[in-house]
Amino acid sequence: MAFDKVSDLAKRRGFIWGPSPNIYNGGVSGFYDWGINGKLLKNKVESVIRKGFSSYSFFEVESPTIMPKIVWEASGHYSNFFDFTVECKKCKSTYRADNLIKESLPNEKVILEMSSLEKQIKKIKCPNCKSPLENIKKYSLMMSTTIGSDKESFLRPETATTTYLLYPEYHRFFRTKLPFGVFQIGKAYRNEVSPRQHVFRTREFTQAEAQLFILKKDKSNISLSDLKTKLPLLSYDKKDPIDIEMEKALKNKMLKSKAYASILEIAYEIIANIGLDKKRIRIKQHHPDELAHYALDAWDIEYKTERFGWMEVCGIHDRQDYDLKRHSEYSKTKFPGEIPHILEIACGVERLTYCLLENSFREEKDRVWLQFPRGMGPIDVAVLPLIQKDGLPEKAKQVFKMLEKNFVCLYDESGSIGRRYARNDEIGTTITCTIDHMSLKDNSITLRDVYTTRQIRVKISDLKKVIDCIMDGEDFLKLGKEVHTRVK
Amino acid sequence: MAFDKVSDLAKRRGFIWGPSPNIYNGGVSGFYDWGINGKLLKNKVESVIRKGFSSYSFFEVESPTIMPKIVWEASGHYSNFFDFTVECKKCKSTYRADNLIKESLPNEKVILEMSSLEKQIKKIKCPNCKSPLENIKKYSLMMSTTIGSDKESFLRPETATTTYLLYPEYHRFFRTKLPFGVFQIGKAYRNEVSPRQHVFRTREFTQAEAQLFILKKDKSNISLSDLKTKLPLLSYDKKDPIDIEMEKALKNKMLKSKAYASILEIAYEIIANIGLDKKRIRIKQHHPDELAHYALDAWDIEYKTERFGWMEVCGIHDRQDYDLKRHSEYSKTKFPGEIPHILEIACGVERLTYCLLENSFREEKDRVWLQFPRGMGPIDVAVLPLIQKDGLPEKAKQVFKMLEKNFVCLYDESGSIGRRYARNDEIGTTITCTIDHMSLKDNSITLRDVYTTRQIRVKISDLKKVIDCIMDGEDFLKLGKEVHTRVK
Repeated sequence: MAFDKVSDLAKRRGFIWGPSPNIYNGGVSGFYDWGINGKLLKNKVESVIRKGFSSYSFFEVESPTIMPKIVWEASGHYSNFFDFTVECKKCKSTYRADNLIKESLPNEKVILEMSSLEKQIKKIKCPNCKSPLENIKKYSLMMSTTIGSDKESFLRPETATTTYLLYPEYHRFFRTKLPFGVFQIGKAYRNEVSPRQHVFRTREFTQAEAQLFILKKDKSNISLSDLKTKLPLLSYDKKDPIDIEMEKALKNKMLKSKAYASILEIAYEIIANIGLDKKRIRIKQHHPDELAHYALDAWDIEYKTERFGWMEVCGIHDRQDYDLKRHSEYSKTKFPGEIPHILEIACGVERLTYCLLENSFREEKDRVWLQFPRGMGPIDVAVLPLIQKDGLPEKAKQVFKMLEKNFVCLYDESGSIGRRYARNDEIGTTITCTIDHMSLKDNSITLRDVYTTRQIRVKISDLKKVIDCIMDGEDFLKLGKEVHTRVK
Repeated sequence: MAFDKVSDLAKRRGFIWGPSPNIYNGGVSGFYDWGINGKLLKNKVESVIRKGFSSYSFFEVESPTIMPKIVWEASGHYSNFFDFTVECKKCKSTYRADNLIKESLPNEKVILEMSSLEKQIKKIKCPNCKSPLENIKKYSLMMSTTIGSDKESFLRPETATTTYLLYPEYHRFFRTKLPFGVFQIGKAYRNEVSPRQHVFRTREFTQAEAQLFILKKDKSNISLSDLKTKLPLLSYDKKDPIDIEMEKALKNKMLKSKAYASILEIAYEIIANIGLDKKRIRIKQHHPDELAHYALDAWDIEYKTERFGWMEVCGIHDRQDYDLKRHSEYSKTKFPGEIPHILEIACGVERLTYCLLENSFREEKDRVWLQFPRGMGPIDVAVLPLIQKDGLPEKAKQVFKMLEKNFVCLYDESGSIGRRYARNDEIGTTITCTIDHMSLKDNSITLRDVYTTRQIRVKISDLKKVIDCIMDGEDFLKLGKEVHTRVK
């Protein structure tokens, strides 16, 4: 099955290790390490998101990940961000009550209210020891800590709240002109009850969340993008998505404002730039019953994974003026001018990175490789001396030095050239660059393409330009003279 | 005073905001937000560090920031990472006992032991209310939290420990070949007692820590660098630093191993690449009395700040095999092969970023500007249409689109051109690029240099190449025809 193959390769080739800390009894569920290739890949995904937001004039900030209790009282997380759990009194297994009821009583409707859940849980036996279950508890999803000796605080369950709090600073910085956009890429924490969905549900993860602060009256007439893209929209009341141009979706009233349509388009463009297969993407509207009372509208960009089915990788929310009003009230701060609305894009970085990994997995007879979209592989160029003598390593190191300023490079001299090719195919290195005896004579090298395994000969002096072209997606075989070498 | 001017500019121009969350009663001490220009600058610093480590074949990983208690028992932090504090019973002020004794009894030696501190504290009155003081407490510097419903855990007080734990994974990944290097850039947390040194002592901060795993026997004969650099070494038994070539310092036995000298040289090169003034840097050895029992040697790279004097920005440690042995023991994991030693470089990212800011501050008559080392300014290119009409904004946006793929760009059309120049000078934008009416006719633009305020005229088709040259430090005036414009 694809998931097992991908997660096995991810472990073996240093993409995702864990659960973490693995040497201590196999680690704690919901925590992972991003290994050497995985971190390079995650950096690339973050870099595409950062460039995407920046190109629409969203500006990055970085806030603390810990905030005192009052902030979470204001945001609503302190009272509302919890799961219902049930613990078996006999065997001490803990379950999420709603999930257990859904699995055990598939025909009953699950309502997230204590009394309703308690009635249903009594019909169910503990899946582990078959004892009766009772006593549902509210289980906060925030992780708590203490600042100083006694200041009750929480690790942020999202970056967004910490970004909102700087509104007065933005207002000054942007010289009172709205709309403006900011974003934050950073850690968030959720104390999930027994998380079991690999990197899709973890207790510590990276969010990339952007906010557009915009006056209510401007939402209907301001757009940051051209609204010409066709997006696969799945309305809450439909069964299948339709591909529809944003302008038309607005006219049809599928979307509630021009500005919202615009950030939806931007979010989709960023996901597309990461290079996920568009056929596996849909954009699903939240059912009005699921919306928080303050949310005007919410759509999720979902990617169809092999193992978990459709998974949210990005959410787009119209939060109206809820957050700023609450923080103004709780902090007793009068914000300058009219309080704007917030339109938000919230991406899960690890989820996107995993989807990209799965999406790039290829297998054919006895060859396994990762075919990342051009430029997205963890390593751009692997520089390989054909053998470890005759001055080839020295020459290869010169080439490495020349390229490392502009590209993510790897120098690798150990093992036969065939094994080094196979290793680089497996981790999805965009291009390998081999230095052989001829290179010493005529300053040319062989470039090999992971997609096709075909090879071209290129002058070292042209190397930077040629690799730039490859990264930009130009046709590999047109960039140099094709060569045919036998690989032992 | 320079500190006030720099921190005022940092606040006003969106570098550093806080304490955070500022709207809630002025924030909590020890927490800051990195604003729009500050985050860009911090990203640049991180990028120099990342490139620096990578170019010596250290590989990046990313681990969770939360680890269960047993990890910190093994690392030693659980028992040993605390401060001695004293709380005034009357006014409830809390002090770090050793600091208070140093200030109040400047002639007495401070020994970090409970009995000795208790004797001394009785001689001191509370600085706030003049009541007598007593009862010193141990105050853990780790922030605690709970994973799941009951797993006692701590936020990491350093990235290093979380990096060490992956040793078995590295060993496989690098196919058992030592030495190898890894690094991690990420958040760490210390629950400081009333931190008061701006971003130099915070409760949440970013570390960039690299580790070289090397066999003990190889430390004397393996070097990653050429050991030719002269470094300003200040031995623990000397009063002043001497500039000495690494090879000579080894021969003199100032440094204990070739490998250690090498990572010291690499650390210094990275700090130099960030562009801090070398005259304000010294490398100070820890006194043997201050060394942890397992540490063979430790030197700190210090930068002389205006306000706080000499401050550590990077530490270089020979930790021997202490960490791996402890984690092997506590996790009951037999590590493969011989246990290597760890040589470590530990940089404080916010400290380095602040030093860079202070180091770049310039003032002359009524002009204030930030003169960052070339390429280190938060924004590479600000694209400015001369006025907001006649098609200049459209043309400027085309230029912006063209440049944003390769450079950090800002598009700014609001206010007079003179005010926009002044604003960009104040934040240290490397180059401004002005589009005027002539640009529409002959596709040329004006580039203006923040260092000198001088201007050259350049073809749009040459723009990317010219900016590349400027970022590489080439002579600005040689890259185009100088123009003289009056700025209103």
